[in-house]
Amino acid sequence: MPNAIEVELVATGDELMSGAISDTNGAFAAGVLRELGVAVRRMSVVGDGLQDIVSALTESAARAAAVIVCGGLGPTEDDRTAQAAARFAGVPLARSEAALAHIRAMFEKLGVPMTANNEKQADLPAGSELLDNPVGTAVGFMVEARGSRLFFLPGVPHEYRRMLREQVAPRLAALGRSEVRHAVRVLRLFGIGESKLETELAGISIPATVTIGYRATWPELHLRLYASGTCELEADLDAAERAIRERAGVRVYGTGDATLAQTVGRLLLERGWRLATAESCTGGLLGAVCTEAAGASDWFECGHVTYSNASKTRFLGVAPGLLAAHGAVSREVASALASEARQRAGVELALSITGIAGPAGGTPEKPVGTVWIGLATAKRVSSKLYHFPYDRERVRQRSVWTALDRARRCLLELAED
Amino acid sequence: MPNAIEVELVATGDELMSGAISDTNGAFAAGVLRELGVAVRRMSVVGDGLQDIVSALTESAARAAAVIVCGGLGPTEDDRTAQAAARFAGVPLARSEAALAHIRAMFEKLGVPMTANNEKQADLPAGSELLDNPVGTAVGFMVEARGSRLFFLPGVPHEYRRMLREQVAPRLAALGRSEVRHAVRVLRLFGIGESKLETELAGISIPATVTIGYRATWPELHLRLYASGTCELEADLDAAERAIRERAGVRVYGTGDATLAQTVGRLLLERGWRLATAESCTGGLLGAVCTEAAGASDWFECGHVTYSNASKTRFLGVAPGLLAAHGAVSREVASALASEARQRAGVELALSITGIAGPAGGTPEKPVGTVWIGLATAKRVSSKLYHFPYDRERVRQRSVWTALDRARRCLLELAED
Repeated sequence: MPNAIEVELVATGDELMSGAISDTNGAFAAGVLRELGVAVRRMSVVGDGLQDIVSALTESAARAAAVIVCGGLGPTEDDRTAQAAARFAGVPLARSEAALAHIRAMFEKLGVPMTANNEKQADLPAGSELLDNPVGTAVGFMVEARGSRLFFLPGVPHEYRRMLREQVAPRLAALGRSEVRHAVRVLRLFGIGESKLETELAGISIPATVTIGYRATWPELHLRLYASGTCELEADLDAAERAIRERAGVRVYGTGDATLAQTVGRLLLERGWRLATAESCTGGLLGAVCTEAAGASDWFECGHVTYSNASKTRFLGVAPGLLAAHGAVSREVASALASEARQRAGVELALSITGIAGPAGGTPEKPVGTVWIGLATAKRVSSKLYHFPYDRERVRQRSVWTALDRARRCLLELAED
Repeated sequence: MPNAIEVELVATGDELMSGAISDTNGAFAAGVLRELGVAVRRMSVVGDGLQDIVSALTESAARAAAVIVCGGLGPTEDDRTAQAAARFAGVPLARSEAALAHIRAMFEKLGVPMTANNEKQADLPAGSELLDNPVGTAVGFMVEARGSRLFFLPGVPHEYRRMLREQVAPRLAALGRSEVRHAVRVLRLFGIGESKLETELAGISIPATVTIGYRATWPELHLRLYASGTCELEADLDAAERAIRERAGVRVYGTGDATLAQTVGRLLLERGWRLATAESCTGGLLGAVCTEAAGASDWFECGHVTYSNASKTRFLGVAPGLLAAHGAVSREVASALASEARQRAGVELALSITGIAGPAGGTPEKPVGTVWIGLATAKRVSSKLYHFPYDRERVRQRSVWTALDRARRCLLELAED
């Protein structure tokens, strides 16, 4: 994939080195730059130490035509990035009147009195070009030195993002002047692991312009199709998607941003159906996942978190005799929960989950990870048994996703796995 | 804080360079290592390219006594970290029988057929030491070369975290052999932001051996007290904790690992009380959070996810007239939901949440972020109004935490904020 230019990113700040926070500016920049056909080759994160920053700048500038640096432009003592930039470029710091005017105007706009240490933010490497920050006091700047262009931005994410788009991206685009276009498409799968899918896709024929990236986002698997070329890329992505779907089949539940729950919601809406849930071991997680995205009220009616056995009887009429005879984790109880949840809510579809999430509560007959998932429509009630050999959190997540996938397959009138 | 050794971190993966995700393993490792008195000097992120990984390993190993690398240990073609490690160390890859046995055992446990490409995961740099992965198929390994120790771990966060704690941390601690001891204590707060707390703690007097680290873990705030010295550190941590509690007051809900939900559970158990919930805009999230940790069945009875208005009437008897007169997001409905949930479940305490999570559904009188939270005991029913100026996800999370904190304060017989 030929790229016009490659860049490196440097993030600075002790808070990034102490475990307090992760750098998220890097991924944001990589996404924006990718759309321009600019590849990020390396990201480096260092603390606030002057020499650490100078070293990182020196090494990145030696490798890349452009470097985007964030953090350390504030007014306090531990903000040393401008100083590091000057040392890297071999120039002194000089008070920028334009930067000072910007800082004064910002404080006036905010209605906050300006303190002496804020003036320090106007001391920039001599000869640097100002990068406007419309939403904060810190100005950015660009330094050209040692054969590379270095862009310095504040670390505050909303300032960084805006300045990256408005100040850095156009300058990099002008620098690159590439004929190569880039496009990406995401296929979302559930019910298959990364290595199994790669085996199934072995020898697949897709356009040479497209490469496949795997990304496991438990409990799902996402395939990212990256296309690069000088011609029309959508047709190539379509061809690659068709080839993958031919092999991966119905385990591909969608493309783009729609989650599994949103996919189920869309299928319900197409029929004018509504959903009710009855949960035991997942404690409400199925309902929470269903209602994560806005618009769920169009198809999600209600849920019951019948955690105790008494509540299964009290709220969904599960007979105590049934619970005594089969246990709460059983086909009979899963079916009763789904069937009652559907009828009592007056909806077309209901899902139920009852299982042993662990770590305690397992028996030889019903070990931890034993989960029954029920599905009820007006026509039928069916419960299926699963064994999820994971820890508590994952048993619960996998149970919720499996229930949603049962609903999806039911709505698509597909056979189940 | 004198540190015995310094380490560097390297994260690999095209998904980190494309904007798809941010590296969060680095911040986790930095936090864990800090507790050992080990400082992270630099973090580097590179793609899946063999030469990029080799370069990053070479440069980090030249600077640091230990390097922790993550990602690229999977079975697919773009997993090249073992190969890069071998090239860096100048040794061939060799099939490890111990690793192969691990992989086979994992697949057997998962009940999934093993494919040929999984065997590749057993090809490790000759002479490397295996690092056990109890929760995944990929084994980790340690390579000693060019004057540095390199630890290779899978990138999957839950595998990385566990192996970092169990495999890497003890080896680094042994490597350090410092006379300086380190201890850490976590104070968990809810209901105050980082900058406000920092202002409130200004000029606080704590032992010189203790430093305070802030960590915002939305919607909570955690204070980490780091103690370093050659003497007894627990007494110093006790003194620091007392001084902080004197100022932060009841907003400190606990220390250590117990979550807010577990804290509420403990307080309920002390009284022999049980909890029921009624949720609208949070869709089951309160129930899911309550039942996240094992043992919740001792105090969590049941929950109602009355998402539609009809279900509020049908399952919790909220009068249609009440809904029509005041709207679903109102003091009256919040109180009715909590009161009915408590009485129908036959429990001592109930919480209810009804609000506008957004992004749509707001009005001038009830904008997005308007949330009523109800609390009912046998003695009283009280509902409080909140305005959470956040996006949908954060409105829901903040609502759940606020409801739990209301329960905590009620159980402690504290005045509310």
